Amino acid sequence: MNHQSDDQQVAVEEDLVERVRGSLAGTADARVHEVMDSLVRHLHAFLREVRLTEEEWKAGIDFLTACGDITDEKRQEFILLSDVLGASMQTIAINNEAYADATEATVFGPFFVEDSPGIELGGDMAGGAPGQPCWVEGTVRTVDGDPVPGARVEVWEADEDGFYDVQYADERVAGRAHLFTDEDGGFRFWAVTPTPYPIPDDGPVGRLLDATGRSPMRAAHLHFMVTADDLRTLVTHIFVRGDDHLDSDSVFGVKESLVTDFEPQPAGTPTPDGRDLADRDWARARFDIVLAPAGT
Amino acid sequence: MNHQSDDQQVAVEEDLVERVRGSLAGTADARVHEVMDSLVRHLHAFLREVRLTEEEWKAGIDFLTACGDITDEKRQEFILLSDVLGASMQTIAINNEAYADATEATVFGPFFVEDSPGIELGGDMAGGAPGQPCWVEGTVRTVDGDPVPGARVEVWEADEDGFYDVQYADERVAGRAHLFTDEDGGFRFWAVTPTPYPIPDDGPVGRLLDATGRSPMRAAHLHFMVTADDLRTLVTHIFVRGDDHLDSDSVFGVKESLVTDFEPQPAGTPTPDGRDLADRDWARARFDIVLAPAGT
Repeated sequence: MNHQSDDQQVAVEEDLVERVRGSLAGTADARVHEVMDSLVRHLHAFLREVRLTEEEWKAGIDFLTACGDITDEKRQEFILLSDVLGASMQTIAINNEAYADATEATVFGPFFVEDSPGIELGGDMAGGAPGQPCWVEGTVRTVDGDPVPGARVEVWEADEDGFYDVQYADERVAGRAHLFTDEDGGFRFWAVTPTPYPIPDDGPVGRLLDATGRSPMRAAHLHFMVTADDLRTLVTHIFVRGDDHLDSDSVFGVKESLVTDFEPQPAGTPTPDGRDLADRDWARARFDIVLAPAGT
Repeated sequence: MNHQSDDQQVAVEEDLVERVRGSLAGTADARVHEVMDSLVRHLHAFLREVRLTEEEWKAGIDFLTACGDITDEKRQEFILLSDVLGASMQTIAINNEAYADATEATVFGPFFVEDSPGIELGGDMAGGAPGQPCWVEGTVRTVDGDPVPGARVEVWEADEDGFYDVQYADERVAGRAHLFTDEDGGFRFWAVTPTPYPIPDDGPVGRLLDATGRSPMRAAHLHFMVTADDLRTLVTHIFVRGDDHLDSDSVFGVKESLVTDFEPQPAGTPTPDGRDLADRDWARARFDIVLAPAGT
């Protein structure tokens, strides 16, 4: 046996980890030091545990390079990667600890856009997006049960073809809006009933999902972001009870408390605001939101 | 106290890790499953240990995006990132375990180019690269002491300004060549004496080095890659004894066994092959190489 002992190999590898950690000794910011030191330890633990080959290392470099190549102003492959590895959802879990009966958070996703159109209470956020009309209503209150008037409610969603407005080549603005709660903390608006759709899977993250036998499908959902003074901002979705993808959401965003009844309404059923939908069926959902205090 | 218990928070985070691991159950290739499962566990362990904030997550996404933006055919920021985190060197350590007195490996680096010019024994690999002339000689043998005739010796290095040929905008080929050992396993060639240089530090990796108080300087070195039938390919460098950067090499490539005497020769000292250097001083170095058997 001409190999050196296993002990000697372990010593070589551990010595390297300590040299890398030691190189961070001059880090000015204590938090940067803490994060980088932990990153180095876990990265090297991964490499050593799997005994990464040089070909696999090269494949990793090529994978990250391909993520960079496909990323542009409208496509963010690194966020997709974080999403499908559950890293986005874990970050949400870490930063939004459960507080009393406050509504649970979930992933933000890559499709939020600043400066959405404002709509009145009862207005239509679909903006022409194709899909089954859906009336959504609810209230915003504190964990003490007090209504929150004037809360800003941002909502956004994909259309029935599975695309957000920004995924189209034209400049349409559809399936996104914001409104403010009334004096009783109430909100209501027209949307389209959410349908399942695949995350963009024609790039390296799609190939990763394929190699690991996973589906790119997201469970059907409608995004909410709710902000109000002195209360913790809530970023969440509501999901559609009965959707086939609740147990296999590609970004691990589903929480049982966010699964909501979307009640089908046959054509001709009177609408809450008298809107005339002619011969179309529609749906309705109720989502009551509870915000934790800021800083919790 | 309206926060749920710490136990409950731990359960939420651990449940998510198990859901992500479970999503990999359908992976067809056992090795892909092993690597991805380990990656997921270590990634989540890192996030949970540092309690990564949502702003820090965003900074991480922006960092990777910036690495992608600056990467092109001539610049590979992801390899630089792997290098400065010691991941490249750890992969080398894992895949090139010490074997008897075989010469130690170190990082490959991003500047190797296929199809380098061939030179005769005693030829000049500098190809016009500016720098102090340096005679390099040595032998290639097996761990049993047998000479290895016909071994292919690839050598490449930066010039005295710290740049490899591919870093210039013109199409020059300089500071790289290959040659073959003679019947006694001997090799000899002219090069330029290696000088320290910074890794490219005008991108995100440079900003990371800056934030962690680290120098981008690499210890001065001359690259070798030696291949021969039935023997393990050796990728390594020789370093210059006395160089200020031996203890702070930015990519952790230095190994004591690779530190070599580069002996200064005053102008007028006769050269080994009678080359006339007029009034220039020069240097000489000896590097004897031992190759492990293939498959070790």
